[in-house]
Amino acid sequence: MLNQIGIDTNRSFVIDDQKEEYYKILDFIDEELIIFTGGLGPTIDDISRETVIDYFGVEASINQEVLKGIKEYFDHIGLKMQNTNDKQAYFPKKSFILHNDLGTAPGVIFSKGEKTIILLPGPPHEMLPMLIESVEYLKQILNIKLFSKGFRLVGTGESSMEKALEGFYQLHSNVNIAPYASIGEIKYVFTSNKLSDLESAMNEFKKKFEKYIYGDLNDTLEGVVVELLSKNNLIISVVESCTGGLLAGSITSVSGSSKVFSESIVTYSNEAKVKYLDVSLDTLSTNGAVSNECAYEMANNLYNKTISDICVSVTGIAGPTGGTKEKPVGLVFFGINYLGNTRTYKMIFNGNREMIRNRATIFALNLVRKELIQLK
Amino acid sequence: MLNQIGIDTNRSFVIDDQKEEYYKILDFIDEELIIFTGGLGPTIDDISRETVIDYFGVEASINQEVLKGIKEYFDHIGLKMQNTNDKQAYFPKKSFILHNDLGTAPGVIFSKGEKTIILLPGPPHEMLPMLIESVEYLKQILNIKLFSKGFRLVGTGESSMEKALEGFYQLHSNVNIAPYASIGEIKYVFTSNKLSDLESAMNEFKKKFEKYIYGDLNDTLEGVVVELLSKNNLIISVVESCTGGLLAGSITSVSGSSKVFSESIVTYSNEAKVKYLDVSLDTLSTNGAVSNECAYEMANNLYNKTISDICVSVTGIAGPTGGTKEKPVGLVFFGINYLGNTRTYKMIFNGNREMIRNRATIFALNLVRKELIQLK
Repeated sequence: MLNQIGIDTNRSFVIDDQKEEYYKILDFIDEELIIFTGGLGPTIDDISRETVIDYFGVEASINQEVLKGIKEYFDHIGLKMQNTNDKQAYFPKKSFILHNDLGTAPGVIFSKGEKTIILLPGPPHEMLPMLIESVEYLKQILNIKLFSKGFRLVGTGESSMEKALEGFYQLHSNVNIAPYASIGEIKYVFTSNKLSDLESAMNEFKKKFEKYIYGDLNDTLEGVVVELLSKNNLIISVVESCTGGLLAGSITSVSGSSKVFSESIVTYSNEAKVKYLDVSLDTLSTNGAVSNECAYEMANNLYNKTISDICVSVTGIAGPTGGTKEKPVGLVFFGINYLGNTRTYKMIFNGNREMIRNRATIFALNLVRKELIQLK
Repeated sequence: MLNQIGIDTNRSFVIDDQKEEYYKILDFIDEELIIFTGGLGPTIDDISRETVIDYFGVEASINQEVLKGIKEYFDHIGLKMQNTNDKQAYFPKKSFILHNDLGTAPGVIFSKGEKTIILLPGPPHEMLPMLIESVEYLKQILNIKLFSKGFRLVGTGESSMEKALEGFYQLHSNVNIAPYASIGEIKYVFTSNKLSDLESAMNEFKKKFEKYIYGDLNDTLEGVVVELLSKNNLIISVVESCTGGLLAGSITSVSGSSKVFSESIVTYSNEAKVKYLDVSLDTLSTNGAVSNECAYEMANNLYNKTISDICVSVTGIAGPTGGTKEKPVGLVFFGINYLGNTRTYKMIFNGNREMIRNRATIFALNLVRKELIQLK
């Protein structure tokens, strides 16, 4: 996030909760911006706030307004505040307070000479919103005019992308373009101080890779799928075997998914496939549960048995056991029925059990997305 | 891992790939053991190996045997080795080579005076096996005889554990006892150079906290649940609302779970609750879907409709929307039917949507575990 607003991050240190250690490190480093995380709690080994304030010798005291906020947080969660929490409101007189809605430790931004110091709490879910607020604050005080946007892609990999991008980076040398790959997806972040340069690079990128792009940096694949369903007033249901609930879990991770998600069945056993979805015994004995035919019947029969507009099925071998020469670990069949018309897909994913299940979940979400963007 | 063999890890630094930066940091630190990760690749910005060897002024050259190994790795993956890879075999004359089966960059351990230096590659899956080998090497050269074991706990939190452990640490000062908390669970790692001290501390700990302990350090909660089911020849099925598939996804993440897991239904809509589980319309209109009564019917009716021996239901409000004063975000009801007998549980979890769903999944797994350990 700092890189994206043009601030170089030089070093990152993990240090002991010892006053001397803080002093040694602060003596050593000469950066203009220092961000601390952790050590803002109420216990005796939480020494960040006092130690850093002492080191820089800025005037500080208990901030009564902040103290009131901490008390209110305790009221909200139904606990009594301890006296030890008082010190969590000890802040430099001249400072910008970062309020914490998810815990007791507020953060703070203050300056000493040329240096800017930011103190944030350690737990990531408390820290992140305050980091975002800090970055906004830095953009304002440093008068940073930087534009940063990007794309999220699915259905392609980093190495084939980098190959396809040969020459592209040189062509857009005024724009910083950085890829970040994770299992099953990849994002590209574009940063520039000239909006027109940024847009021209992004437009060209979009033309080249449109079929892989599912959204911008703030999107999630499941969020895009839920939004597409919602916009088109469509209901989805899924039936899973090898992903065992992950596909449903992914869709329902989106707040508001209850409007578009009806039901999911995990038919792990063959009996369950027959009972819930009338998969034919003939298919199971002739082609097996991991087959094109079974994926077809699962998606097709789910569609006929539910009020859903779109139904997806997943059946495969996640491993590490259960693979054969004909049906190796990683083999997964998908079925998708949209308004009565069923198609199937066959994929072979690599990786361990967890990776195969995650890749299959992402592939299924992307199938739905691709089906629905034709409606846009 | 270093802590567990009695080596204090003082600091961790993340630095730029700049020669001057390596020198500055190496001048600054006074530790006896320094481990580097990353920068062992073949490209021009991979400078760790040469820079560190230069800094310490030890005699080095291309190790022909290592070079042969790198060539063999390239043969194995069917690619031609480039000349730039030669430098990956540049090692101190007196050194212990750490072979890399998963990539081109071997690691190395060497000494200079009192200092031991270890260079490891950056990609985690390449680094980890070599770190394990390094720790074994250190144990041998430092003649460390240390024993390390531990417990994993669920159903308790770090602060209430720490309160209950007051005095315990002092009583077992020969044993290093370290807690590691994550969402919904906590592990305690015990380390000592005297096996009897270790065992006496662990026995006392176990007596105190038996009801929370679900396994040792290598266990997972879902793994323990699948093992308990398997050992007792029991079949489980689940029905989920707010967890939306995560409970099934968690159970089926265990390889071999297909033997004990039959089916799962995600009845997100009220219609699905009625269709699959005959939840009474009266219950839904009088008590609502998030109620004791609904959780009871979901677990009870699933048991009656399946061949399962144990059935679990989850219904709640994951948020961020949908909460009311009477039924706040985080309210979750659980039902568990074991051999025809249904009980229900009510919990209020804190955190965001993701945390509430994860906590509810762990709570449900632990319900099953507690039900089944009575059988042991």
